[in-house]
Amino acid sequence: MSSSDIFIGETIGTAILILLGGGVCAAVTLKASKARNAGWLAIAFGWGFAVLTAVYTSAPLSGAHLNPAVTLGIAIKDGEWGDVPTYWAGQLLGAMIGAALVWVAYYGQFHAHLTDREIVGGPGAQDVKSVEAREAAAGPVLGIFSTGPEIRIAVQNLATEIIGTVVLVLAVLTQGLNDSGKGLGTLGALITALVVVSIGLSLGGPTGYAINPARDLGPRIVHALLPLPNKGGSDWGYAWIPVVGPLIGGAVAAGIYNVAFA
Amino acid sequence: MSSSDIFIGETIGTAILILLGGGVCAAVTLKASKARNAGWLAIAFGWGFAVLTAVYTSAPLSGAHLNPAVTLGIAIKDGEWGDVPTYWAGQLLGAMIGAALVWVAYYGQFHAHLTDREIVGGPGAQDVKSVEAREAAAGPVLGIFSTGPEIRIAVQNLATEIIGTVVLVLAVLTQGLNDSGKGLGTLGALITALVVVSIGLSLGGPTGYAINPARDLGPRIVHALLPLPNKGGSDWGYAWIPVVGPLIGGAVAAGIYNVAFA
Amino acid sequence: MSSSDIFIGETIGTAILILLGGGVCAAVTLKASKARNAGWLAIAFGWGFAVLTAVYTSAPLSGAHLNPAVTLGIAIKDGEWGDVPTYWAGQLLGAMIGAALVWVAYYGQFHAHLTDREIVGGPGAQDVKSVEAREAAAGPVLGIFSTGPEIRIAVQNLATEIIGTVVLVLAVLTQGLNDSGKGLGTLGALITALVVVSIGLSLGGPTGYAINPARDLGPRIVHALLPLPNKGGSDWGYAWIPVVGPLIGGAVAAGIYNVAFA
Amino acid sequence: MSSSDIFIGETIGTAILILLGGGVCAAVTLKASKARNAGWLAIAFGWGFAVLTAVYTSAPLSGAHLNPAVTLGIAIKDGEWGDVPTYWAGQLLGAMIGAALVWVAYYGQFHAHLTDREIVGGPGAQDVKSVEAREAAAGPVLGIFSTGPEIRIAVQNLATEIIGTVVLVLAVLTQGLNDSGKGLGTLGALITALVVVSIGLSLGGPTGYAINPARDLGPRIVHALLPLPNKGGSDWGYAWIPVVGPLIGGAVAAGIYNVAFA
Repeated sequence: MSSSDIFIGETIGTAILILLGGGVCAAVTLKASKARNAGWLAIAFGWGFAVLTAVYTSAPLSGAHLNPAVTLGIAIKDGEWGDVPTYWAGQLLGAMIGAALVWVAYYGQFHAHLTDREIVGGPGAQDVKSVEAREAAAGPVLGIFSTGPEIRIAVQNLATEIIGTVVLVLAVLTQGLNDSGKGLGTLGALITALVVVSIGLSLGGPTGYAINPARDLGPRIVHALLPLPNKGGSDWGYAWIPVVGPLIGGAVAAGIYNVAFA
Repeated sequence: MSSSDIFIGETIGTAILILLGGGVCAAVTLKASKARNAGWLAIAFGWGFAVLTAVYTSAPLSGAHLNPAVTLGIAIKDGEWGDVPTYWAGQLLGAMIGAALVWVAYYGQFHAHLTDREIVGGPGAQDVKSVEAREAAAGPVLGIFSTGPEIRIAVQNLATEIIGTVVLVLAVLTQGLNDSGKGLGTLGALITALVVVSIGLSLGGPTGYAINPARDLGPRIVHALLPLPNKGGSDWGYAWIPVVGPLIGGAVAAGIYNVAFA
Repeated sequence: MSSSDIFIGETIGTAILILLGGGVCAAVTLKASKARNAGWLAIAFGWGFAVLTAVYTSAPLSGAHLNPAVTLGIAIKDGEWGDVPTYWAGQLLGAMIGAALVWVAYYGQFHAHLTDREIVGGPGAQDVKSVEAREAAAGPVLGIFSTGPEIRIAVQNLATEIIGTVVLVLAVLTQGLNDSGKGLGTLGALITALVVVSIGLSLGGPTGYAINPARDLGPRIVHALLPLPNKGGSDWGYAWIPVVGPLIGGAVAAGIYNVAFA
Repeated sequence: MSSSDIFIGETIGTAILILLGGGVCAAVTLKASKARNAGWLAIAFGWGFAVLTAVYTSAPLSGAHLNPAVTLGIAIKDGEWGDVPTYWAGQLLGAMIGAALVWVAYYGQFHAHLTDREIVGGPGAQDVKSVEAREAAAGPVLGIFSTGPEIRIAVQNLATEIIGTVVLVLAVLTQGLNDSGKGLGTLGALITALVVVSIGLSLGGPTGYAINPARDLGPRIVHALLPLPNKGGSDWGYAWIPVVGPLIGGAVAAGIYNVAFA
């Protein structure tokens, strides 16, 4: 694969991943969405099939890592580091594009949710809601972009992200053993997607399962940049955990692979 | 494939698609349905598995486009336009047949929902319900046939339909790269179905994800023609968006494909 | 395939189908079940994966028809009628065994539901509940065994069953075209299962989608025979519809196949 | 396969199985989990995709039995008993590791649920809740580790576990006939996972479907050992049923296989 194919593939793939993954969070969260309150099962399947769609579409170009922790795990396993910066750059750019597309697709819904008015425009949004109502609306909106913990204990939050990412990356690394080295083909994309559904259902409760540094950091940057009314802060104090945790998890998974499976 | 196989295949396939897709909307919406209020996850899986059933059944005859936007994207990608009118004609006819079959399968439920009486027949339906109750029942019934926006902003509604269709058609076009040119075989039908579940969960909130001009226009025509009591209008003012948006989306997807993947 | 393999395979397969399909109805319906009120999505996936498990297990012996309407459709398509009585006999016997196993697996739950007492045994069940409470409990219990319509209109009920069965049998018959004549292999079992999920979500609302004469008749006989307290009648007046409708549907599907696909 | 590969594979695989399976129970049960009250469908899919992830990851090392009842059934079918102790030892150890990892991933949630305080630490937990509130919280927490019956009738509970395990092990044993002896490959892992979803939806209502002695005994031991505040007893009086029932079920399935399929 050429560097430009890798970069383009990861950018397109991660953009689709975050468009669909952030999209299901918007669909379930925002006012005036037909899917509002569809529940955690919708979130878990939504993110899983987002992975399916993104991997399937971008695999012919870049092999569809779409996750810096997966790229790190594969680099450690194979001992090849040359393409890592290209993968990471495409992943971060794609995640930012995807988050911006969620904003476009749900433009009126974001406005209605944050201002309580369905008609976009008119007087300044901050005039019409109390401070409490603004904060109650802003928190879930940040959750459409980035993850956050239910209980803020840094050690546990980090551990939960590490554990979830180990499961993901170990399943990705052993794929070659199941599929005779054919890489991320059609069925591999489906299995990976259902593994992500599994992690969401089983390990998403405490922190919202970033398990992917680009998935969390890219949209958080976009949240900070977008002109959303009453949006509140982007919780940068938590931002290091969904970056560092998944990277540790990817490295641990590669270590387990090299000891037990290689 | 012969023209008659294409026409028959698309007619049968799109009829099954709309029978099952409109069917799940009827099942979740109408009074006296066992699946009433089954929620958005049921809608998303229902439409996705409708695609699976329809693609799987009609693929041997016509390759199972079942969507004018897919046909447009493939035509742009391949530069072959000769069969496009045959595909589009079969798709529109099939969508109308499918919508009529939903009406047959849920005949008593439609009547009960729109008149509040479980026994079909008797005095004129309009005598027994207030204007407000009639309108409250008629809106969801139109939603069984055609899509409609939660917030009516033409630019956003169009953008949401374009974005959703780009994801769908790009996944269909890259299928050949994943499956070694074998076309829409068994596993491809499954992947496409789950991509549609994904789009429904993630991008269906604002407009109800037509992402297919025939899926929206055909049933809307049937809604206008059927003798449903108290049915109200067919919202023709919105009808151009789920036709134009998906066609633009299909063309954009083909453009991305030709630039990045070909 | 020998006649004894067909008979044993259909008996085992249909027993698993009804054990799991009736089981999910019991799980969602009965008091003191952990899955109570899990909703229509659980019903639809439960029956679909019941088909998957049953087809996968019995396919090596009998090809896994598990449904007299499927057997009829295949007989019409192939013009071979010799094994039809063996298939049908195994299917009916299997359905009765499966329904009896549901009763064993949920023994205490049936008793608790019908008598409002968790401790099995003690004085006569009919002493402790009012006539109204007995009837309210008995209806859903019959629904664990057999289907029934929400609105009792014989023509519509028959039409709904015919339409649902046409979709099912047409998907089964076209499988050979998709899978190069390999028959109901691993992936075919999965597709058929998801088609059944689809029919359940989309066409199950009016009548509960028997789409299989053995699935309805066998358990209804067992309901009439079992010593369930306060069980009420077995609704024999409706019993012909889920037998005749699916058989007509299987024949119509075979006709469509022979005209359009052969 | 070498003994060490079998032991390591079963340990890793069963650890992943219980981490994800116990994890979904924690996610749905505990206070301050984003997935709280996600319902039985989440439980059934969560355990099924836990099987998928675990089988897929460990199959290259050990063939991925991950269940003493599966190992027993395969041993009876093949008449080879030499590796059985290695499989069983790895399965029990893995189940204990998995249960401990659930505790790590949901550390703050366990504490919040059992003490009603989100801040871990402070005065003795037993001081702040009534006896009744402690018992109401402790029961569901035990349910994250081990199964328990809704109605305690030993004969029925045993029968339900036997029936569920027969379905599981028969589907595993017939896999070789469907997949031409290729063993638990990619698609086989998916089918087995969906069979487990099916058993959960259909037969999980009365006892919570252990259908695996290691899945129940290993986490119960860990529940007894962990320093959880206010945790209550580990219900050892019931512990024999989810061990004995599945072993009987595995043997019965092997008997059916040897008589009908071999």
